[in-house]
Amino acid sequence: MGPGDRRDKRDFFGSLRTVLALALVGFAALACAGGSPSGGHLYQRLVDKLRDAGLTGEQGFELLKQITSVGPRLTGSPGAAAATEICLRLMTELGFANVHAEPVEVGHWVRGEVAEAEITASGTRAAVSLAVCALGGSIGTLDRGLTAPVVEVLSLDELGRLGPKLKGKIVFFNRPMDRRLADAFSAYGGAADQRVNGASAAARHGAVGVLVRSLTFREDGNPHTGLMQYDPGAPRIPAAAVSTLDAGILSALIKKEKDVSLSLKMDCRDAGLVTSANIVGQITGTDLPDEVILVGGHLDSWDLGVGAHDDAAGCAASLEALRLIKAVGLQPRRTIRVVLFMDEEFGGTGGRAYVRAPQRKGERHLVAAESDRGGFAPIGLAVGGRDSKVLEKIASYGNLFKPLGVSFILPGGGGVDVGPLIEQGAAPAAVMINAQAYFDVHHSALDVVSSVHPRELELQAVILAALAYILAQEGS
Amino acid sequence: MGPGDRRDKRDFFGSLRTVLALALVGFAALACAGGSPSGGHLYQRLVDKLRDAGLTGEQGFELLKQITSVGPRLTGSPGAAAATEICLRLMTELGFANVHAEPVEVGHWVRGEVAEAEITASGTRAAVSLAVCALGGSIGTLDRGLTAPVVEVLSLDELGRLGPKLKGKIVFFNRPMDRRLADAFSAYGGAADQRVNGASAAARHGAVGVLVRSLTFREDGNPHTGLMQYDPGAPRIPAAAVSTLDAGILSALIKKEKDVSLSLKMDCRDAGLVTSANIVGQITGTDLPDEVILVGGHLDSWDLGVGAHDDAAGCAASLEALRLIKAVGLQPRRTIRVVLFMDEEFGGTGGRAYVRAPQRKGERHLVAAESDRGGFAPIGLAVGGRDSKVLEKIASYGNLFKPLGVSFILPGGGGVDVGPLIEQGAAPAAVMINAQAYFDVHHSALDVVSSVHPRELELQAVILAALAYILAQEGS
Repeated sequence: MGPGDRRDKRDFFGSLRTVLALALVGFAALACAGGSPSGGHLYQRLVDKLRDAGLTGEQGFELLKQITSVGPRLTGSPGAAAATEICLRLMTELGFANVHAEPVEVGHWVRGEVAEAEITASGTRAAVSLAVCALGGSIGTLDRGLTAPVVEVLSLDELGRLGPKLKGKIVFFNRPMDRRLADAFSAYGGAADQRVNGASAAARHGAVGVLVRSLTFREDGNPHTGLMQYDPGAPRIPAAAVSTLDAGILSALIKKEKDVSLSLKMDCRDAGLVTSANIVGQITGTDLPDEVILVGGHLDSWDLGVGAHDDAAGCAASLEALRLIKAVGLQPRRTIRVVLFMDEEFGGTGGRAYVRAPQRKGERHLVAAESDRGGFAPIGLAVGGRDSKVLEKIASYGNLFKPLGVSFILPGGGGVDVGPLIEQGAAPAAVMINAQAYFDVHHSALDVVSSVHPRELELQAVILAALAYILAQEGS
Repeated sequence: MGPGDRRDKRDFFGSLRTVLALALVGFAALACAGGSPSGGHLYQRLVDKLRDAGLTGEQGFELLKQITSVGPRLTGSPGAAAATEICLRLMTELGFANVHAEPVEVGHWVRGEVAEAEITASGTRAAVSLAVCALGGSIGTLDRGLTAPVVEVLSLDELGRLGPKLKGKIVFFNRPMDRRLADAFSAYGGAADQRVNGASAAARHGAVGVLVRSLTFREDGNPHTGLMQYDPGAPRIPAAAVSTLDAGILSALIKKEKDVSLSLKMDCRDAGLVTSANIVGQITGTDLPDEVILVGGHLDSWDLGVGAHDDAAGCAASLEALRLIKAVGLQPRRTIRVVLFMDEEFGGTGGRAYVRAPQRKGERHLVAAESDRGGFAPIGLAVGGRDSKVLEKIASYGNLFKPLGVSFILPGGGGVDVGPLIEQGAAPAAVMINAQAYFDVHHSALDVVSSVHPRELELQAVILAALAYILAQEGS
């Protein structure tokens, strides 16, 4: 990955915080615009039909089961390739138009078979095993593993203060997600620097490996993987995540004992470049086919679970939104397109490939709605980013969305995949989700189909369908 | 139970619908009042402290585990008695004032050991077992069971049309909760008449038993129990709930075969009256100790699971709210009281006993906040019922609650237990909850501790604490 990847991921955390800050300021004013304008009743019957068609079944969940049927879909893996085939078939079966794959050249990182960590402390006789997993993008250790004394830190800043003391050490980043933040995404964004940038920051001070506390509020035995990135100027050292329970054990041992060492063994590796694909399908607009309202998620996932919430849910909700629009017989004026992006998790090459693809010639994307916040219950809408026109339009139809669980409509939206489209002028949009349990499963073995509630997922699809259709009729 | 019980339960469904209707009308106007008034910042620091004290731990969940440690708490059962002892101890340990039990004479219905149902159809050789459970309050069958042909109906109205055809039959009520309703409570309220009133309605036409489709959106094998009530003028016949999956099998068989019979065997029975208790504790007001802001839930539960959501969650959130107020050192001007009511599930005798108790002399309840909507993520507040003054006050502090997940503040609140207080002039209040998954577990074996998310429950407690403290300072 190039430096561009890193910037995108950082922007994502930054923009999340922006959205939340705006949320607190902007709510009252925008909610006041929430009454239906005179035209609102025109859509009421359509939204009712979408809701009835959606909530009477669990078709979104069925689509999610199909997507996850291939198992994990790590970028560049056979699972990801199988998922592209399945989604091409699903879109064709659902009668979407212009169904095709657009090639994306992606990296292929391989987790390997081994991820082991043992601590040995001066006061304990036996080594203690820790539940760890390699972070995505990490190099492996030598076959015999890596053994070094452990230094615990709570921030990247602390590294500078410890300086030379880190030479030859394994740095253990143990700052928890801030539980005091009611917004789970904020807490995640506030702790993710350890995982994304910790290895290179430690390596610059001579550290030989890093272990990062898993990004979850829960105290359990599941390590949570996720992207880490090497700075071009820093030595590459192995990076692993450790379960929160075991982070607690390690931290307690470090406090009690003078000398605690860690042995880390991982056989993960970079396997070069692979040609993968974004998967595209649409309902072609009757009047303005080149003006596009995009809904989508990312088809790749992490590989410890099956990425049911992250992001089979977003893909399934997007597919289901188009299915619903067709099912109730709506023919949008502008094109409503679903894009299932490849390679969000390793930095968004799919999103960048999409805007560069030859098929974009002559197209104009008005709105890009990325669903990548899990399949939990919808609670609101974030729309338009800094573009207040789209926000005002959707807020003016607020009463249509309220019975579906949309209790606020705020400036915001966006995501890694649609970032490049938004840079080109598309307005972002996103269904906001109750995320209290999202990081319990996120990037871990717990992100499985049974953690998704069919009806909560279906509500997201219904809202997306209504949002996309209204925007397709009215433009931005 | 007397007719008064039935009225309370009906009022509850009725008032739920009122709340929802008001929700759609009232949202925009009220949200506009959501900005902080000049005094809002006075509370901001206190709400932050409550949030920090709550979300850094999972004490609400620990309280829930203690309450459910006794197992099911069916009204009048040894489990319910054990729960009253535990809660007296908990309140004392938490340093609450005026901790005491107030006696309530409750009915004691016993489920027994046997609940079996088998269908025999002319075209099938073997009998098919159905997953059933007795509805609360039902009489049992004779020891040899009850065998009769089955007639499927979708509404109580349909009984009148079938009239004499029901004589000697078992009536199978199979109207599902309306999946099209995004609000799960509305869907529940719209189907519960079959369970509550179906038996007597069928018995008036000569039916000898009823089987009622479980009240859940899910298609699974779990029967969901709940209250049924006999009209004084109708013959008493056995009433059972059947799992939704088995309701589907039975319905399909009835459609296919001419003659389908059901054998039902249950040994549930009425075991007379028992003296139980409401459990009370408080933080006594410094200035106006006789003016009370009440928070509470019901301590009794159904007996198939352990009533973790219904309503250990409400009890735990209420206890935790007071613990938080004490933990951050707040001393309210008015009394903030927690009441854990007994016997909500069989009609609310605890709520009626509470208003009649000698301790109420000289007291005035300004607000009664009942938490009985499950321990899922908070999404809003319903306040004040028809009393717009309390609503306006809380709405004026809307910005304090928004970061805790409160996206709307609407007229509403109320519940079976606080109904009598509200009749006497107390304003209702309630934290509204994401209820999409509530009826998956409600009144079934799935209502267990692991179905509650510690952080979602804690958010409810923090919101309750902030709400109660502001009301205790400002009055209604």
